[in-house]
Amino acid sequence: MKSMPLQLESYLGKPVEALPTPALIVDADALEHNLACLAGYFARRKARLRPHFKSHKCVTLARRQLAAGNTAGITCAKLSEAEVLVAGGVKDVLIANQVVGKPKAERLAVLNHAATVRAAVDGAENVEELGAAAVAAGVAIGVLIEIDVGMRRCGVPPGEPALALARKIAATPGLRLDGLQAYEGHLVTCPDFEERRARVTDAMQPVAATRRLLEAAGLPCPIVSGGGTGTYEITGNLPHFDEIQAGSYALMDCAYAKVSPMFHNALFVLATILSSGRGFAVADVGLKGMGNEFGLPVIAGHPEARPRSIAEEHLPIDNFGAAVGEKIRIIPSHGCTTCNLHRRMWIFRRGMIEDMWPIEASGCLE
Amino acid sequence: MKSMPLQLESYLGKPVEALPTPALIVDADALEHNLACLAGYFARRKARLRPHFKSHKCVTLARRQLAAGNTAGITCAKLSEAEVLVAGGVKDVLIANQVVGKPKAERLAVLNHAATVRAAVDGAENVEELGAAAVAAGVAIGVLIEIDVGMRRCGVPPGEPALALARKIAATPGLRLDGLQAYEGHLVTCPDFEERRARVTDAMQPVAATRRLLEAAGLPCPIVSGGGTGTYEITGNLPHFDEIQAGSYALMDCAYAKVSPMFHNALFVLATILSSGRGFAVADVGLKGMGNEFGLPVIAGHPEARPRSIAEEHLPIDNFGAAVGEKIRIIPSHGCTTCNLHRRMWIFRRGMIEDMWPIEASGCLE
Repeated sequence: MKSMPLQLESYLGKPVEALPTPALIVDADALEHNLACLAGYFARRKARLRPHFKSHKCVTLARRQLAAGNTAGITCAKLSEAEVLVAGGVKDVLIANQVVGKPKAERLAVLNHAATVRAAVDGAENVEELGAAAVAAGVAIGVLIEIDVGMRRCGVPPGEPALALARKIAATPGLRLDGLQAYEGHLVTCPDFEERRARVTDAMQPVAATRRLLEAAGLPCPIVSGGGTGTYEITGNLPHFDEIQAGSYALMDCAYAKVSPMFHNALFVLATILSSGRGFAVADVGLKGMGNEFGLPVIAGHPEARPRSIAEEHLPIDNFGAAVGEKIRIIPSHGCTTCNLHRRMWIFRRGMIEDMWPIEASGCLE
Repeated sequence: MKSMPLQLESYLGKPVEALPTPALIVDADALEHNLACLAGYFARRKARLRPHFKSHKCVTLARRQLAAGNTAGITCAKLSEAEVLVAGGVKDVLIANQVVGKPKAERLAVLNHAATVRAAVDGAENVEELGAAAVAAGVAIGVLIEIDVGMRRCGVPPGEPALALARKIAATPGLRLDGLQAYEGHLVTCPDFEERRARVTDAMQPVAATRRLLEAAGLPCPIVSGGGTGTYEITGNLPHFDEIQAGSYALMDCAYAKVSPMFHNALFVLATILSSGRGFAVADVGLKGMGNEFGLPVIAGHPEARPRSIAEEHLPIDNFGAAVGEKIRIIPSHGCTTCNLHRRMWIFRRGMIEDMWPIEASGCLE
């Protein structure tokens, strides 16, 4: 009695509105514009793009990002994402986060038999743990020292603490010091570009100083990695940055539309109106199909429509007269947490379904 | 190179802290207390419990809720959840929501070959759509008219609009009018119990009047269904309510702990400290492993710890000195959106792993 798994064959060439809802749908023209736009930008820069997988969690899309060119590999947020990427044939992955605990250190080491999979580090015990796993597996694990540039999350302070950790890494068998990572996450959505530029440039200066400090101590930093969709024109132009970890640029969302208007919105949640009348309508998607932490979504093509709130499976929309059964396209406020809720994305071009890509790493993988 | 799927056999009998994180873990003693507590309450009432599947999306747990007794069947939020439940052997399901569009109407009709699967309705066109699908499939679909008691979401106003829709249903081949549904979702977490009682009782009076109106017109309403974990003692005591749709009581969360203290917290996200020092620690779970719409989570056993914010994969916790690698138990603010992010829940008793239950309906199913 369980419904049949959705097959591409049943929907190929049909209007995207034929899909059962809620469905994650991606405009191929907008996606291709975004990939070409950012690849073109990095064609003219020293820094490379290392697209962030966490924004979409879809291996097919990661491969498209690599194929667009001027990339250094893929960034991801956690070991389980790296495992999905390597299983999908990606050969150079940076886990922009700490991989902690002996079992995960062992998984990371094993993964390095099949690909180059680096991790960020910010503590001596974790360095020892990764080194021991690498030696046991007969591999070298490349690590980047994470520098806290003001986000107050993971990372060591710049300068001497980073140098001390670099010396520790250099003295640890099984590890290879590959450079530094610094993410200016607290600044990426600062609305005014000039203010963003000034604050990001300022925040990233200690990273340059730390790189010089380590190099003076005979500890070269071939890779300095950081940045995002909101700052690629800033961090990507700093002479001491080698890789930019932009992710949201590929699919976009309401929040980044304000920050990075050169990219087009490619991501929508297709929804069906369940109930209508009395001045409002209710769509069949809520918190279980859309991220909400950057605010309420936008109804594409209906500037008059005002989402009122977001429940688990309902989106009540004021000032909206859509009929029951009508399909609408919703632009989520945050693409990253939205893709995480779906198992597949449907690719459409000029309204017609062209492909279906699994979102292999969606949900909370361990 | 992809990591092996997690097997129960590898973890059975081990401390719950042996699990890779983030992991959804459930305290079996607390869960059993909650199931027995609410089943015991309904043993002494006319109304039955119809546990809401959307809170956990786990078929094994739904079966435990039925086995605890005094239930009328299971409630769920959407057709795809009902399909998962019927595939898992559940024989009586209420979809407490509209099932809209011909393809979904057909799926609902087919499902009624294997089980009794009712749906809520609030519009004439949807009634025709469901009736046509039922006739085509050779089944009768039972429907409840949803009454809007002030939440301003789905539903018709009480009184004459409900009577008009009831007449329409009675005149539609393939449909069976089984009663009314009314959910007081805007009142379920009202903090003061006496205020909640007064407001819920008041909001539900028009439902009683509507039931009498329909019965006077020769349209009996054998089932009136509504209520939740925060209102079961109120709605469950109203003489005109037959079924209570409580869901959160089974696993609980921070938000319902304030509203319904008779239930124990059974649900935690097990996390690992990735980074520590400088007065705060960072755990390896964020928005992609925990719902946040009811606020920040709580660190179990550490009243001094103050989660500062929640990122996609990080929870920075101020005033917390846990060591890197330490496992902590986090109580999410909302269990329903948290379970939706995980593919399995690990059942533990007095710290040791006892079972693993798949969360079959997690993620955004179509």
